[in-house]
Amino acid sequence: MKAALITIGDEILSGNTIDTNSNFIASELKKIGIPVLQIFTVSDEVDTIVAALKSAFEMADLVITTGGIGPTKDDKTKAAYAQFFNDELVLDEETFEHLKKLLIKRKREHLLEINNNQAVVLSKAKVIQNENGTAPCMMIEENGKIAFCLPGVPYEVKPLIKDRIIPFLARKFSLNHILTRIVSVVDVPESLLSQTIEDWELALPENISLSYLPIGNRIKLRITGSGTDEKELEKEMDLRIEKLKPYISEKVISWDGNDIQEILKEILTEKKLTLSTAESCTGGELARLITSVSGSSTYFLGGIIPYDYHKKVEILGVSEQTIADKTVVSEEVAQEMSLGCQGLFKTDISLSTTGVSGPNSDEFNNEIGTVYYSIRVKDFEKTNRLYLPHFERNDFANFVSQRVLQDLVAILVHH
Amino acid sequence: MKAALITIGDEILSGNTIDTNSNFIASELKKIGIPVLQIFTVSDEVDTIVAALKSAFEMADLVITTGGIGPTKDDKTKAAYAQFFNDELVLDEETFEHLKKLLIKRKREHLLEINNNQAVVLSKAKVIQNENGTAPCMMIEENGKIAFCLPGVPYEVKPLIKDRIIPFLARKFSLNHILTRIVSVVDVPESLLSQTIEDWELALPENISLSYLPIGNRIKLRITGSGTDEKELEKEMDLRIEKLKPYISEKVISWDGNDIQEILKEILTEKKLTLSTAESCTGGELARLITSVSGSSTYFLGGIIPYDYHKKVEILGVSEQTIADKTVVSEEVAQEMSLGCQGLFKTDISLSTTGVSGPNSDEFNNEIGTVYYSIRVKDFEKTNRLYLPHFERNDFANFVSQRVLQDLVAILVHH
Repeated sequence: MKAALITIGDEILSGNTIDTNSNFIASELKKIGIPVLQIFTVSDEVDTIVAALKSAFEMADLVITTGGIGPTKDDKTKAAYAQFFNDELVLDEETFEHLKKLLIKRKREHLLEINNNQAVVLSKAKVIQNENGTAPCMMIEENGKIAFCLPGVPYEVKPLIKDRIIPFLARKFSLNHILTRIVSVVDVPESLLSQTIEDWELALPENISLSYLPIGNRIKLRITGSGTDEKELEKEMDLRIEKLKPYISEKVISWDGNDIQEILKEILTEKKLTLSTAESCTGGELARLITSVSGSSTYFLGGIIPYDYHKKVEILGVSEQTIADKTVVSEEVAQEMSLGCQGLFKTDISLSTTGVSGPNSDEFNNEIGTVYYSIRVKDFEKTNRLYLPHFERNDFANFVSQRVLQDLVAILVHH
Repeated sequence: MKAALITIGDEILSGNTIDTNSNFIASELKKIGIPVLQIFTVSDEVDTIVAALKSAFEMADLVITTGGIGPTKDDKTKAAYAQFFNDELVLDEETFEHLKKLLIKRKREHLLEINNNQAVVLSKAKVIQNENGTAPCMMIEENGKIAFCLPGVPYEVKPLIKDRIIPFLARKFSLNHILTRIVSVVDVPESLLSQTIEDWELALPENISLSYLPIGNRIKLRITGSGTDEKELEKEMDLRIEKLKPYISEKVISWDGNDIQEILKEILTEKKLTLSTAESCTGGELARLITSVSGSSTYFLGGIIPYDYHKKVEILGVSEQTIADKTVVSEEVAQEMSLGCQGLFKTDISLSTTGVSGPNSDEFNNEIGTVYYSIRVKDFEKTNRLYLPHFERNDFANFVSQRVLQDLVAILVHH
């Protein structure tokens, strides 16, 4: 079984909204061994949607669309489905009842009439009720092919995919097993890494593939295997990872883990270490990354964002003199921030960032893109400088935060 | 001129990486009046990329591809371009020199040999050097159609698009002007809003279109106009906005602004108010949202993330007794947090969040998805409760943060 996705919505094509649904759906499908061959992102027009459905079904036997099924005039997906499947739209009683309950729960009974057309579905569709919104999800099976028509709002899409559609597909079709391992390598450029492990890569069997995903100065080697026998496949993957070790061990910070914050969680939990953050130029992004992991409250005790420079003095005890001598974007201030942070939160580890993310320079005329970060693990301390003049503000905060966590992991693994 | 985008990369189709390039490119193209008709997301295979180039050029006269031009074996885009344009790949001296300089600057001269193939381009391509990476950007013009071949790394893509490609296109073609206004409406369901402004919507002229973008319980009405005479168009848009006012004024929190944090900036700057945050369940996301705006340091003085509950007591002065009586996820704790925060940072406004984002419950057995937030504007205080049991962890933090800022804006506008 192979899938194609169709993302429907002018707001995506105009650059107003980032499509995160496709990413989520693709990664969930992958877990049950269904590859996504292509993603079509199209506008809210009946003809365009019909053409995309046609192209998608030419290459795939499973098509999932998101978007364009709201109650307003700019939503055209249902009409396109009706045309493509040569079917008509009818009022579905069960959906209507579901809608009624939902609106009563939300104290919006008076809206029932204008939400009527939300209960209209294809006559041949099986309806999967949407617990988080008024647009129902439709499934249409025809000639061994399946289409799912989903709403576009991500928090409506996720539970429908995860709790309803994935279990249904996994039950209905017995599928190939797919296993993925991600090996994280630092401080080796992609081209050198590729040369270093070339012999190993060329010896990989047909059912195991490799790809390189650079993120900051970490490269994720994604090793993907597929097979009918899960245990056999697992053994083969383990063997290949073992064979990789002699080539690159001293540059590897994790042998299995996608996100740096997940890798960090494993290490901190194992070593029973606590963590805190003091952020200036990253503005909360570092703490957000750390707390994006479930269970992070066991090791992350807290963070402070002393954005205004007086707060660095008042709350973290950074010396006025240091700021006057070295400016707020300096090695020394980064060090005093992490020291103050370690004291404030009473943690084993503290991290600090101070820099100028732009687009404007700061009051000290520091160069845009300059950042210092300090990593403190008990008595050990390390400060680094980065210079990222071409980064947009949010990318800057994310890149710096990723890099700080990556360096912390490298210190914890190799020191 | 119309555009199609092609995103190339198995890492997108596997759900490993979110494609943010298309969003950025589409929004930049939109500003110079070039609509994106479709986005094709395809795998790293020569045949697939060639097929996508073919489909894209059937509908558009400008095609921009991102991804698949790195130095490793899994990168196939250049080969696909050579096949599609019936051309050969040659070593480009200028690109080679540029690469050399870049590698010397990065102290990686020894890599020049293996990076050689990064300097290989289509013989008919015009090369635009990439200041942030080793893969050059190619432009190919043929039969009045243009293709741009870009790398996939977002921070390499952004400056190439913004500083090189957009100015080139704007200079070369005289394009239609596009204007967009975003009106933010709160506390009206989409279907009721659509009914309320129906007469106004139906009276819009051909060159002005409307779409609804719900985000949290805010609905963004995006009004887009196009025309050859910019001033004339501006006047027409102003007129339409004026005509909209009688229908919905009391529910509007902003007449022009996309992101809630940008809208907030305008209000806080105008009213000269300062802001601080105390976050528990949002884990830094609220501060990150606020600081994602350039210039936020003039009103955002700082934030605290007392993640561990003892830190709420120690740093913010939340009472142990309140926590014992009401648990840490309660109206009372939210209120004491915002009060402590206002005192710690000495700001006019303080915001606090406390909740259980899941997937696991907290030590007090509070129901997953429960959150309280407190908004304090000088002496005024307001606490709200949200219940979001179906949200994934990061969506939860983002949704709550958006909602807190939205409520703050509503208070500042209407009180």
